[in-house]
Amino acid sequence: MKIYIAGTGPGGAGEMTPRARGAIESCDVIAGYGLYIDLIGELAEGKEIIATGMTGEAERCRAAIQAARSGKSVCVISGGDAGVYGMAGLVCELAEGLSDIEIEVIPGVTAACSASAVLGAPLTHDFAAISLSDRLTSWDTIETRLRLAAQADFVICLYNPASKARAGHLKKACETVMEHRPAKTPCGAVRNIGRGGESGKIMSLKELCDFEADMFTTVIIGSSVTRVIDGRLVTPRGYPL
Amino acid sequence: MKIYIAGTGPGGAGEMTPRARGAIESCDVIAGYGLYIDLIGELAEGKEIIATGMTGEAERCRAAIQAARSGKSVCVISGGDAGVYGMAGLVCELAEGLSDIEIEVIPGVTAACSASAVLGAPLTHDFAAISLSDRLTSWDTIETRLRLAAQADFVICLYNPASKARAGHLKKACETVMEHRPAKTPCGAVRNIGRGGESGKIMSLKELCDFEADMFTTVIIGSSVTRVIDGRLVTPRGYPL
Repeated sequence: MKIYIAGTGPGGAGEMTPRARGAIESCDVIAGYGLYIDLIGELAEGKEIIATGMTGEAERCRAAIQAARSGKSVCVISGGDAGVYGMAGLVCELAEGLSDIEIEVIPGVTAACSASAVLGAPLTHDFAAISLSDRLTSWDTIETRLRLAAQADFVICLYNPASKARAGHLKKACETVMEHRPAKTPCGAVRNIGRGGESGKIMSLKELCDFEADMFTTVIIGSSVTRVIDGRLVTPRGYPL
Repeated sequence: MKIYIAGTGPGGAGEMTPRARGAIESCDVIAGYGLYIDLIGELAEGKEIIATGMTGEAERCRAAIQAARSGKSVCVISGGDAGVYGMAGLVCELAEGLSDIEIEVIPGVTAACSASAVLGAPLTHDFAAISLSDRLTSWDTIETRLRLAAQADFVICLYNPASKARAGHLKKACETVMEHRPAKTPCGAVRNIGRGGESGKIMSLKELCDFEADMFTTVIIGSSVTRVIDGRLVTPRGYPL
């Protein structure tokens, strides 16, 4: 019994790999958050759909595993990459000890990469990815990671910078980073990557404090060498020019 | 005059997005490291190729920009993602001030994601990406980042863990991380991702010290919560099960 966990990339079909697409096409059942099911559009047509709300992750993955064990072919989809804050970990946890289940994880284009491409090339040197969601992680842990990432001079990519329940998280995060990095540090934010309404904006760290991010925004905070070149956010690798 | 910089993913055509493939197909000229040109196979057939050796990055990107300015359509390719240690930054730097050049960066599946998919789901929580190449970055900087990333309890993804000129880097890196993380921390390494001879191996941090990585290896060092579940490397996000 096989279960695929496939990353569908940032948005439309143009950024989903043929391998992920093939897995979805081959399956009887698709499990995923409703938005991601909508984004794959006609690929989901005629399939059995397992979709629960945003906080129903474990329930959805359990139902997917159960469907696979009943003999159906199943693909769990995650936006972006299947691993980065995606469903791959949860399926592995829930399938623990089920020797009849074979798991195949199919990677995708994660938001750090797709947001960077919209902004220019901010991830050309070492970086850290941090989620600002404190639903499953304490804010203390998040803040410690922000502080150490700033000290390490990583470019920092923020996933889940805001939601209705998390007003003020981005501002707090920027203030923490600003203890170690100048207020003028170049940053960027991208909304609705790869979808209608995609928009990228470059601004200073100080300006980012008051930027109104939503749950469809990915944020990049530059390192000490990140700069704005012709309107693009770029972290040089250091090649002699 | 337009220049694309496209990430071709980990290996074969199955993991290149349609958007990247379309850009390559539409262009007269392809610029890239020889290995990546070989990997895109027939897509490169009949195209003008700009390929220099591994250390000829700036020279290659300059030639690509020059070709674009002469009126040819040009795609610079990078393995994995175009931004993560890829060519996007360099092209933006070299095209600075050239108002006749329009740059479009097309993201791809980076090695952190593709290696993770082979190993299981180690990147389901916050992580840092660090290159062990000291060709353009001092070893002191690399070591400081390793130390702070370990303190922050990030999962750590190592790019360029070794090359002929960098024997001993992976061992030194593991020893630095081990100052803050137990020797039994689960880790993994993947060789030749998405290509013939792909192989993933899970081992302890202590064992990773003496693992013989090469320049086609990507390494993942687990955080304090990463564990091995049924032979897969998994970092739980923390969902209540």
